[in-house]
Amino acid sequence: MRIDLNQPALTREQRAQLQEMWKRCVKRIIASTTLAGSGHPGGSLSALHILLMLYATLNHRPEDPAWEQRDRIIVSMGHISPGVYSVLCEFGYFEEDEFLLEFRRVGSPFAGHVEHCVPGVEWNTGNLGQGLSAAAGIALAEKLKKNNPSWVVALMGDGEQQKGQITEARRFAVKYGLSNLIGIVDRNHRQIGGDTEKVMPQRVRAEYEAAGWNVVYVEDGNDFDQIFTAFKKVFLRQVKNPDTPTVIVARTVMGKGISFMENNAKYHGMPLSEDEAERAFQELGITNPIPQLKSKRKTHTNFRPFFKYPRKKVQIDVGKPRTYGADEKLDNRSAYGAVLEDLARLNNLNSVPKVLGFSCDLEGSVKMNKFHQVCEKAFYECGIQEHHAAVASGAISKEGFLTFFSTFGVFGVCETYNQQRLNDLNETSLKVVCTHLGLDVGEDGPTHQCIDYIGLLKNLFGWFVFLPADPNQTDRIVRYAAQIDGNVFVGMGRSKTPVITDLKGKPFFAGDYRFEPGKADWVREGDDIAIMSYGTLLSHAARASDILRDKHGIGAAVINCASIKPFDRKAVLEAAKRRVIITVEDHHVDTGLGAIVSSILAEEGIPCRCVRMGITRYGQSGKPAELFRWLGIDTDGIVRAALNVYRKKASVSA
Amino acid sequence: MRIDLNQPALTREQRAQLQEMWKRCVKRIIASTTLAGSGHPGGSLSALHILLMLYATLNHRPEDPAWEQRDRIIVSMGHISPGVYSVLCEFGYFEEDEFLLEFRRVGSPFAGHVEHCVPGVEWNTGNLGQGLSAAAGIALAEKLKKNNPSWVVALMGDGEQQKGQITEARRFAVKYGLSNLIGIVDRNHRQIGGDTEKVMPQRVRAEYEAAGWNVVYVEDGNDFDQIFTAFKKVFLRQVKNPDTPTVIVARTVMGKGISFMENNAKYHGMPLSEDEAERAFQELGITNPIPQLKSKRKTHTNFRPFFKYPRKKVQIDVGKPRTYGADEKLDNRSAYGAVLEDLARLNNLNSVPKVLGFSCDLEGSVKMNKFHQVCEKAFYECGIQEHHAAVASGAISKEGFLTFFSTFGVFGVCETYNQQRLNDLNETSLKVVCTHLGLDVGEDGPTHQCIDYIGLLKNLFGWFVFLPADPNQTDRIVRYAAQIDGNVFVGMGRSKTPVITDLKGKPFFAGDYRFEPGKADWVREGDDIAIMSYGTLLSHAARASDILRDKHGIGAAVINCASIKPFDRKAVLEAAKRRVIITVEDHHVDTGLGAIVSSILAEEGIPCRCVRMGITRYGQSGKPAELFRWLGIDTDGIVRAALNVYRKKASVSA
Repeated sequence: MRIDLNQPALTREQRAQLQEMWKRCVKRIIASTTLAGSGHPGGSLSALHILLMLYATLNHRPEDPAWEQRDRIIVSMGHISPGVYSVLCEFGYFEEDEFLLEFRRVGSPFAGHVEHCVPGVEWNTGNLGQGLSAAAGIALAEKLKKNNPSWVVALMGDGEQQKGQITEARRFAVKYGLSNLIGIVDRNHRQIGGDTEKVMPQRVRAEYEAAGWNVVYVEDGNDFDQIFTAFKKVFLRQVKNPDTPTVIVARTVMGKGISFMENNAKYHGMPLSEDEAERAFQELGITNPIPQLKSKRKTHTNFRPFFKYPRKKVQIDVGKPRTYGADEKLDNRSAYGAVLEDLARLNNLNSVPKVLGFSCDLEGSVKMNKFHQVCEKAFYECGIQEHHAAVASGAISKEGFLTFFSTFGVFGVCETYNQQRLNDLNETSLKVVCTHLGLDVGEDGPTHQCIDYIGLLKNLFGWFVFLPADPNQTDRIVRYAAQIDGNVFVGMGRSKTPVITDLKGKPFFAGDYRFEPGKADWVREGDDIAIMSYGTLLSHAARASDILRDKHGIGAAVINCASIKPFDRKAVLEAAKRRVIITVEDHHVDTGLGAIVSSILAEEGIPCRCVRMGITRYGQSGKPAELFRWLGIDTDGIVRAALNVYRKKASVSA
Repeated sequence: MRIDLNQPALTREQRAQLQEMWKRCVKRIIASTTLAGSGHPGGSLSALHILLMLYATLNHRPEDPAWEQRDRIIVSMGHISPGVYSVLCEFGYFEEDEFLLEFRRVGSPFAGHVEHCVPGVEWNTGNLGQGLSAAAGIALAEKLKKNNPSWVVALMGDGEQQKGQITEARRFAVKYGLSNLIGIVDRNHRQIGGDTEKVMPQRVRAEYEAAGWNVVYVEDGNDFDQIFTAFKKVFLRQVKNPDTPTVIVARTVMGKGISFMENNAKYHGMPLSEDEAERAFQELGITNPIPQLKSKRKTHTNFRPFFKYPRKKVQIDVGKPRTYGADEKLDNRSAYGAVLEDLARLNNLNSVPKVLGFSCDLEGSVKMNKFHQVCEKAFYECGIQEHHAAVASGAISKEGFLTFFSTFGVFGVCETYNQQRLNDLNETSLKVVCTHLGLDVGEDGPTHQCIDYIGLLKNLFGWFVFLPADPNQTDRIVRYAAQIDGNVFVGMGRSKTPVITDLKGKPFFAGDYRFEPGKADWVREGDDIAIMSYGTLLSHAARASDILRDKHGIGAAVINCASIKPFDRKAVLEAAKRRVIITVEDHHVDTGLGAIVSSILAEEGIPCRCVRMGITRYGQSGKPAELFRWLGIDTDGIVRAALNVYRKKASVSA
């Protein structure tokens, strides 16, 4: 089915055909949820007419879901998966039975909330309020790549309009003139808790208007003709201001089409019982398919394989590493900024930039300013809107752009943890480079000191986590990250940091050094104890080792664990031969490197002590050196701890 | 200084006096930041007139900062601490020198972002966009407690208006008629990145209007007379709709008063150099105090002690525990709901409820509905606005109400991690009870499966973390949590769970059982290996132990670690005597119980293997039992793993 928006109106045949399609989809929505014993039929029905009209009018190819010229439909309220799958199979993306027999079963792609392992689904959603940000990211990609960009539609629930992130996305879309971005609000006035006006009163249209969007209202969003008229207006660019995004607010009815489901919030997230389903099918004049499907479902085990959209690769020239001499004092942020500048010069001077930068009102602090200067159109200032920025940059990172998102650690990790989690589920390829990690933030105090970047990111299965120790390693890690597919976190402190050198005084992370994920660097050798560290405190660990050797005759190996995920397990086993490992980090003492090392030791049951040095309480406002001293995790503190454990070890051996 | 808002206008004397105060405060703002070598003078100057007028007109007692009848001033843009401290010392909250000599130094309360260890500061801020939520929580508390509630003012920056959370707070404030809540936006049109219109265009007044607030505009927010006129209108309730909250948008100038600082975004977060400061003091016609202060600062070490607002205690009758029999099948959520109902009946039937409940469109799922029914006015439905809900409930929890915030784990922890972190810094006393933890969520799939609740909360120093194993333990833990001061997380799955019994078949967590934080429960004895678990999988661990004993003759101790923070270190040492510990959890395998146990073993260097069983990849959509089987962490999987490690252990011993 394909309807041309240039038609003056729907034809009688189209209307009839849409009605038949609608009926089949209603059947699937009810059957799938009742069969699964769970799911969301109410919203699926309320949005069904809109979904059908979207797939009937927009450009897409069921036989080639990843077709470059397709329009995009992001379903932000992922719980209406029964509606989405019903429509996708109606349009030929897959067989009806696959969906009905597998919905909400382990091993099947047909999950309870839409996932992109189903062809036709562009973006995993479920946690509400993120879809508009993702759509904005994709709309921006389209605008960058094409003179005639594809439409990007974010279909949203009305309950989720309450989420603050949506207001952030709205502003971003206006700022960047995302005229190809269309929001549709399924305004059924119901959410789990009942009437939206009772749960949380909100003037949805007034809000979009205040944000500068075109607003098109559809009085009956369950009427194909009215939707068609609205779509004509919007997609033929007959809105008030065609240079700005548009929202269609469509008044719908939750549970539309089944009398006892209509306007009943109970069916937001609850399937019909088999008896209720029988009644529903009677109303529709359809034979109840459930009994037959139920027995088929029991024996169906050959599940549909997970669909994979092809990864969009981007060829990046990462240039040559810069090397900072042993006597230079530089912050890692500046080394990062220099790489970004190189990347812009080498990749962004053609019409379409390949490397993009996103930041949240911290361009200068995170050293994106030179990158910005080299290529204005590659830099996106998102304002103090981190939730939106995390998702939008995540979405665009899958569209053939090497995308960097930079802000302070507390904003790029703590504040947006859940957005980064959803990015992970969406298999984005975002490079989050956070500056201002740890107590090294200094005087801005505990609200700004991110001391849990490992503790948080360790929970996300897909992310790489790299923490360079000095400007040279920063340079090499960022260039490495620019070349790999997947989500990468690179973290660094705020302050100037010494260039790490070998015993001869030569820069350690230069010359033949190549960064390899999962490989630790033995910065100092030593057979008595081992010190494992990374990032800001690595230089302290190295100095401590030098003092221990020169003043106390103790050999303390220093192992730099810049690659936290993946981790160098072998390095721990090797270090453990010394029977004492001290971990030192500008991070919560219980959740970072020390915990990782401990877990490996305990897995093996190796009798090696692990003394964890790190942050044992919230920080204060003061100079980093004073904060490290206060908590005993500076050079002197490490020496003291090393002497202490070494003596204990010696007394046990004796 | 005290100005009566009933005056028709400022008197000439008052104007002159305010001008003198202003000048002294400017001096402090410049001196403090230049002395510290960091800080935020620009916004401090732009908001200074407003700050002075607030403290001159509102009710407060410098000699008794915690005075019950005071109006509250929440400074949401915590970086204007130099301005806040300058005004507070002007009004006598502390000595000028304390502030000037200690600003931004380790060991001093005068931190870079305002903290409540300074008398007069009500709420720690720094991460932007949270102040209005906190103020809304306090305004609600005032409304509940008093017929004539005190004013609660949230002074905000204009940059932070971009944060989505502010829009959430706006709606909540309208819904609950918080007419005593006043927002003030310091509209200087500058943020770090420059002109707010360039960084992120936003129609601030239109947004507040669309949200249903009264909007009062001040054309010159650096003019005492204009501010006074606006304050009269607002605080004498002469706004359009006195039943709804009001925002004052005051057009100000960043850096106001020093010619070269005005409208210069550079001075948002950068102090003047000593030369620039000298110029500034010349402009003001003031002797430069810096040289003298600088030398005093060097020798000043006797820092002002941290101020402590008295904790507001609330006497709660927690009733008697309910006991569920061995044959009852119940979800922990329902047991939680039953306790809430008891708490409402026992404590909320007087005019002012003592126990409050907050939820985000999940009242039924989190079982708050009976609580709601018993006492309508104690339940606050926040809509799908978790960021706001977390902060508002945190704020009200310090105001003499036992406050529960309940939602799914992904919303109460993952989405709001940073809000809970700030709650921790604010030493709130919030009880976050999250349901729907782990793969036990089932068919809603990975977006809804919170598998990192320990991994995240472990990073927060202040929080208690309790994870009950069955309805009986849930009952006792929630009643316990209701009695203690501080932030408590109680987490549980979604599904019905067997009542844990002893070997005689009697409910384990009943009778003489008393919950004690930091104490694990030995649910099964056994000398061969130890299994440590909690929550949803504890019943699997117990069954596995029974099978190992009955079928294989292996003694597997089962230790229930319901108290994750604080943790029972002794239990690990005791368990480790068996040389093998298996940890089993419905949680990320690397960041939960297994990591805690491993860290303790490695700290001691005990040669005991720790086999971590848990979630090794993102979940899928399916029934919990199938998901546990899929990942091998159900009863059978535990038995298999136990046999495997037991045999290895035996072969090593042999």
